[in-house]
Amino acid sequence: MRISASFCLLFMTLTIFGQKPRARDLGIPFEGTTGTFNAITDVSGVSVGHTTLISGSGNHELGSGPVRTGVTAIFPSGKKKKPLYANWHSLNGNGEMTGTTWITESGFLETPIMLTNTFSVGAVRQATLKWMVDTAWSDEDWWWAFPVVAETYDGFLNDIYGFQVKEAHVLEAIENTTDKKVPEGNVGGGTGMMSFGFKSGIGTASRLLQFPDTTYTVGVLVQSNFGDKKRFRIDGVPIGQELKDTLNPEYHAPPKSRRKNGDGSIIVVVATDVPLLPYQLKRICQRVPIGIGKLGGIGANGSGDIFIAFSTANQKAYVREGKASVTTISNDWMNDVFEATIQAVEEAVINAMVAAETMDGIQGNKVYAIPHEMLIEIMKKYNRIR
Amino acid sequence: MRISASFCLLFMTLTIFGQKPRARDLGIPFEGTTGTFNAITDVSGVSVGHTTLISGSGNHELGSGPVRTGVTAIFPSGKKKKPLYANWHSLNGNGEMTGTTWITESGFLETPIMLTNTFSVGAVRQATLKWMVDTAWSDEDWWWAFPVVAETYDGFLNDIYGFQVKEAHVLEAIENTTDKKVPEGNVGGGTGMMSFGFKSGIGTASRLLQFPDTTYTVGVLVQSNFGDKKRFRIDGVPIGQELKDTLNPEYHAPPKSRRKNGDGSIIVVVATDVPLLPYQLKRICQRVPIGIGKLGGIGANGSGDIFIAFSTANQKAYVREGKASVTTISNDWMNDVFEATIQAVEEAVINAMVAAETMDGIQGNKVYAIPHEMLIEIMKKYNRIR
Amino acid sequence: MRISASFCLLFMTLTIFGQKPRARDLGIPFEGTTGTFNAITDVSGVSVGHTTLISGSGNHELGSGPVRTGVTAIFPSGKKKKPLYANWHSLNGNGEMTGTTWITESGFLETPIMLTNTFSVGAVRQATLKWMVDTAWSDEDWWWAFPVVAETYDGFLNDIYGFQVKEAHVLEAIENTTDKKVPEGNVGGGTGMMSFGFKSGIGTASRLLQFPDTTYTVGVLVQSNFGDKKRFRIDGVPIGQELKDTLNPEYHAPPKSRRKNGDGSIIVVVATDVPLLPYQLKRICQRVPIGIGKLGGIGANGSGDIFIAFSTANQKAYVREGKASVTTISNDWMNDVFEATIQAVEEAVINAMVAAETMDGIQGNKVYAIPHEMLIEIMKKYNRIR
Amino acid sequence: MRISASFCLLFMTLTIFGQKPRARDLGIPFEGTTGTFNAITDVSGVSVGHTTLISGSGNHELGSGPVRTGVTAIFPSGKKKKPLYANWHSLNGNGEMTGTTWITESGFLETPIMLTNTFSVGAVRQATLKWMVDTAWSDEDWWWAFPVVAETYDGFLNDIYGFQVKEAHVLEAIENTTDKKVPEGNVGGGTGMMSFGFKSGIGTASRLLQFPDTTYTVGVLVQSNFGDKKRFRIDGVPIGQELKDTLNPEYHAPPKSRRKNGDGSIIVVVATDVPLLPYQLKRICQRVPIGIGKLGGIGANGSGDIFIAFSTANQKAYVREGKASVTTISNDWMNDVFEATIQAVEEAVINAMVAAETMDGIQGNKVYAIPHEMLIEIMKKYNRIR
Repeated sequence: MRISASFCLLFMTLTIFGQKPRARDLGIPFEGTTGTFNAITDVSGVSVGHTTLISGSGNHELGSGPVRTGVTAIFPSGKKKKPLYANWHSLNGNGEMTGTTWITESGFLETPIMLTNTFSVGAVRQATLKWMVDTAWSDEDWWWAFPVVAETYDGFLNDIYGFQVKEAHVLEAIENTTDKKVPEGNVGGGTGMMSFGFKSGIGTASRLLQFPDTTYTVGVLVQSNFGDKKRFRIDGVPIGQELKDTLNPEYHAPPKSRRKNGDGSIIVVVATDVPLLPYQLKRICQRVPIGIGKLGGIGANGSGDIFIAFSTANQKAYVREGKASVTTISNDWMNDVFEATIQAVEEAVINAMVAAETMDGIQGNKVYAIPHEMLIEIMKKYNRIR
Repeated sequence: MRISASFCLLFMTLTIFGQKPRARDLGIPFEGTTGTFNAITDVSGVSVGHTTLISGSGNHELGSGPVRTGVTAIFPSGKKKKPLYANWHSLNGNGEMTGTTWITESGFLETPIMLTNTFSVGAVRQATLKWMVDTAWSDEDWWWAFPVVAETYDGFLNDIYGFQVKEAHVLEAIENTTDKKVPEGNVGGGTGMMSFGFKSGIGTASRLLQFPDTTYTVGVLVQSNFGDKKRFRIDGVPIGQELKDTLNPEYHAPPKSRRKNGDGSIIVVVATDVPLLPYQLKRICQRVPIGIGKLGGIGANGSGDIFIAFSTANQKAYVREGKASVTTISNDWMNDVFEATIQAVEEAVINAMVAAETMDGIQGNKVYAIPHEMLIEIMKKYNRIR
Repeated sequence: MRISASFCLLFMTLTIFGQKPRARDLGIPFEGTTGTFNAITDVSGVSVGHTTLISGSGNHELGSGPVRTGVTAIFPSGKKKKPLYANWHSLNGNGEMTGTTWITESGFLETPIMLTNTFSVGAVRQATLKWMVDTAWSDEDWWWAFPVVAETYDGFLNDIYGFQVKEAHVLEAIENTTDKKVPEGNVGGGTGMMSFGFKSGIGTASRLLQFPDTTYTVGVLVQSNFGDKKRFRIDGVPIGQELKDTLNPEYHAPPKSRRKNGDGSIIVVVATDVPLLPYQLKRICQRVPIGIGKLGGIGANGSGDIFIAFSTANQKAYVREGKASVTTISNDWMNDVFEATIQAVEEAVINAMVAAETMDGIQGNKVYAIPHEMLIEIMKKYNRIR
Repeated sequence: MRISASFCLLFMTLTIFGQKPRARDLGIPFEGTTGTFNAITDVSGVSVGHTTLISGSGNHELGSGPVRTGVTAIFPSGKKKKPLYANWHSLNGNGEMTGTTWITESGFLETPIMLTNTFSVGAVRQATLKWMVDTAWSDEDWWWAFPVVAETYDGFLNDIYGFQVKEAHVLEAIENTTDKKVPEGNVGGGTGMMSFGFKSGIGTASRLLQFPDTTYTVGVLVQSNFGDKKRFRIDGVPIGQELKDTLNPEYHAPPKSRRKNGDGSIIVVVATDVPLLPYQLKRICQRVPIGIGKLGGIGANGSGDIFIAFSTANQKAYVREGKASVTTISNDWMNDVFEATIQAVEEAVINAMVAAETMDGIQGNKVYAIPHEMLIEIMKKYNRIR
């Protein structure tokens, strides 16, 4: 396959400046306008921090490694208690997102959203609560909170049964938060994840919405670990089928698992400053499956596809006593928010894959990064990049 | 059983003024403060109309009668399109309430709520839509609506398979609406209904809520057709067990039905001027089962126990374009609304039973009114009326 | 645009035999293996009947016409009461499907599924119940049923405010049922519908699933009335953008409606003989949005996207008394059913559009059929038809 | 108040044999027939273990104590992976029950159910998973699980912000399991809990169901920490109002909390050997609010009232591949299961309160046991104990 000159130029340019290309940099076409960072942090107030744990190699020794995992912390609006309207939805619930029952009931997200691996949800929940206690997160004597901790499974590469995530790692992720550019790929909770047969991890994207009164933003962050290679599509182009014999994951310890092709999971976090009420935020979450489906996801039985959305508007909606005045938008205006969400979900997953790098893990299991140049050539073959 | 003098006095007094006693008039103790009419119409803007169809007697002739049925129309806020925040919940879904899917999605109730028998939901939906067309309910060229029509089954007394409810009856119920005193018992959609083995029908009640800023109202209207006699309680007193051999329904055509004791249904409509968002209104509906349960209901398998709640506040929440400013209350304040709802549900059901009068219907089937004097005596026996 | 010789040949061949081409006949590629009829009737026991009402032309006279509507009846398993496991899901609930609350509660679909226009749900529900009474559908004295009646809006072409669907039309649809080839396009409830800016209506498709023990079938029928032209895709190819200036709907009475591009609705009925329990059937329904999304749907705010699925296995699951032995499949096997459902939804919608013919209606409003030859050429341009 | 002679006799008798009286021993009337232990362990296969942590007294020192908390482990069917049909429901979701999303999706409960305090959910989840790893709970190479861990808040008495529950305590609860008599009151996860203003904790009860073919059992276990004293009723008798000035909780560190009267939580676990499918088990959970409501609960805003039900029948429903044959019961038979559940919930809560003993905790806060003799006298006053 001949590599195009323009791609080489792009690649060299980005490398010189120490930047990895993102999906748009490769020329992959996307609809809509992005925010400054094309990231969830384009929604004002949102910050994201990662702790990435990579150590050891070779054979798997329980509790020792190799370690390929981490923690991602997403703060909707600062590090003190600041409840925001939120809601959630599951396409396929083979996963965990703690704290959802109170979100459904109260309409509010009261805590950060933490992402990690399946076996570290407990450690992360405990450490997050301990951090709350230690930082006087609430000013009440008698208080409680239900931290939102979600997960996907990285046991193909990581010593997941070794419970490698400790309290200090959680604190580090909280410490690391930025409201600017968000690292993608093999970072944070996404460190050991894979999608559609290639290495994946954390990805993010955003869309600007031009409404008559103002410009709003929808930002998405994914921890993407789902998808069957044969179904993988970008903008309708059957990438997975074109690459079906290329760079498949290698594993060196034949599993007795019932894990199937296409199993895996994706956690999607949608942030927006559009003033939406809890029921409108549920509607947002219910459109996430469309973005996933366009990429080739089917909500496979082994997949934990769980989505949460919050609005940073209505910061004064939460009151202990009395009434609050809040803003909502016309339901007819939701269409634009739906479309922005679907677009950003697609781009965030592809960003995660484009940013991720080839990784080996336990037993020498290995997952390859998707080859950028081949991706471009296939898009051209189907008339999507000119 | 000795009838108390005070009851005789009460009864005479009410009779003289052409009024039927309500549960409170009998001395049954209730908690909380009622509104002016102790009715759903205490919530400003709410109006209720009945069409009561009673004709024929004796043997059942399909399509001829006897007829013991009707229609009840509840207008949340006038007779033009005026969407209000609403939500719904089902304790046991052996029933129909049309229009609920759009309420869940949009957060709004856009139509009146119509109550009738199980087999007349179609006729009532059609007639309601026709009335909307004829009265230019919407000012759009292309519009549609999903009328909320709910039902319970009156086939024990009524020629239900004869489809006796016609368009004219629906229009009459709409015409008959009042925002004052609401007729109870054998009226409207409740005409042929029974509860806990006694005659029942439409009942209503209200509660005032004293909040620091203002007084709010919760109003409830029920079409009550549920409950097994042996479980019937008022304020904890086992009325049903005490009356278990007294005035049981008589039927003269042994049914091949699988209808069980305790089957039946109850539709509950909760109106309030507390400014609640759709998710808060769902929480209200989810407390209705507690009121039903305290009376002895269990959400029996044959029962269609479906509840809808709407708030008359936030009249400007619905906009076609742009944003809307709406008011909500602290979740911590919901407790008072929960309690008011539970209390009003209990009282509305008992009001329906106290107001209903003995009725015979098809085949000479007969359902007795609950005997007021015995009710009072039993309450005294258990130390609840002094 | 040059029309290919092979298409002409196909077209002529089909015309000679009085058959309309279906999507596959045009060469559009689909994955999976179809059943005999590539229709919902490939699921043994399922039958479908249409009543198509087309009369009048020109100006709109309320109650007179033009009429462009109808009724479709789907019988899961014969014309007597035969409850089957079922469940449902809504992507966007701007629509009506009656009878769903009892399906959720009981796990069973007890009635036929009827499709019609938005304003005729009441008439169809009433007529269906009357047919049940008249044909002794149940053998009980005291019985009731909650017919499933769903709808989409055909007011662009049809005198929808004239309530043109009458009892006789419902009986005719019931009478017309076949378990063989199902007419598509401008028929039955789909008569006046449109999708992605082109004429649409009823469509159907099926998939065979090869499991170790046996071959199962998934069949889908849609009443398709949704989608914004600019988003329309087939197999990833941006058909809508390529045709954006071609054959757009014409309307001659400027609407004051708030109906937006892309609004509309789609009712999806999924039938299968895979032995699925109610919760597994809900999972099927939750994958329907992926099929819709791949075509370009977003669950727009004005759209009533409601889906129902039933299994014809476990015919003895419903018992009045005692226990029943039923069969279920491994959750891990659900993936194949998910994929078959998504594929069949896509094909059924395209079938509806390919079968539909250009239609004019009230006020001379006109909706064009999608041009088959152009469709083929575009697919070739994007390397999908060779 | 005069203490009856029979009560003294009962009390002495039980004391001599080292047994605490249960609610029935006091003469409180309950409907229905209990199993051998009147406990959740009457459902064959179910076992329960507690770790009770009580140490220190006086002033609160974060991380030191006083400690008044614990862990309860409920194993539905042995200590290896054995998925059983299950479902869940929330009356008011101010609480956490992890693992529910997968139960909804898959229909199965795959793990033990662990109960603890609000801040120890993370530690218990982690320890439970670690125990699974260490005991080869699953025989797969790549596996994961979503342990069900639920909680209520014991911060009135316990050093809850000190995270006192450690891995060893979880293992001890798992080790301690019994399928016989279940300790009640100040034990396990219920150690520091209170209900209706009195000391509470763990309670349990069971009911036998006589069906034509066999006898089935419904067992309930509660961790009860909810309820406003003024609403407390037993069998309709207003115990709370009668005791409103008696033995109220004492606290010595005025809280700045927004915790209201009546807040708190209750976790309810329902086990049964009735062969129920997942949707039928949800119906069971939806009746739990009726039991709670009869006692005086309203699902207060500060309350985490979350319920889970599982069936030990259909032990072979879970298969990795292929089909499974399972048994279900007639929906019409559900009424008896509903009633048994409601009865057992009521009795389990009262058992928790009757078994609990007066306890002081942090800062000298103190919660009194409900006085048994006064309880009996009040029941007599309202004609419920003769």
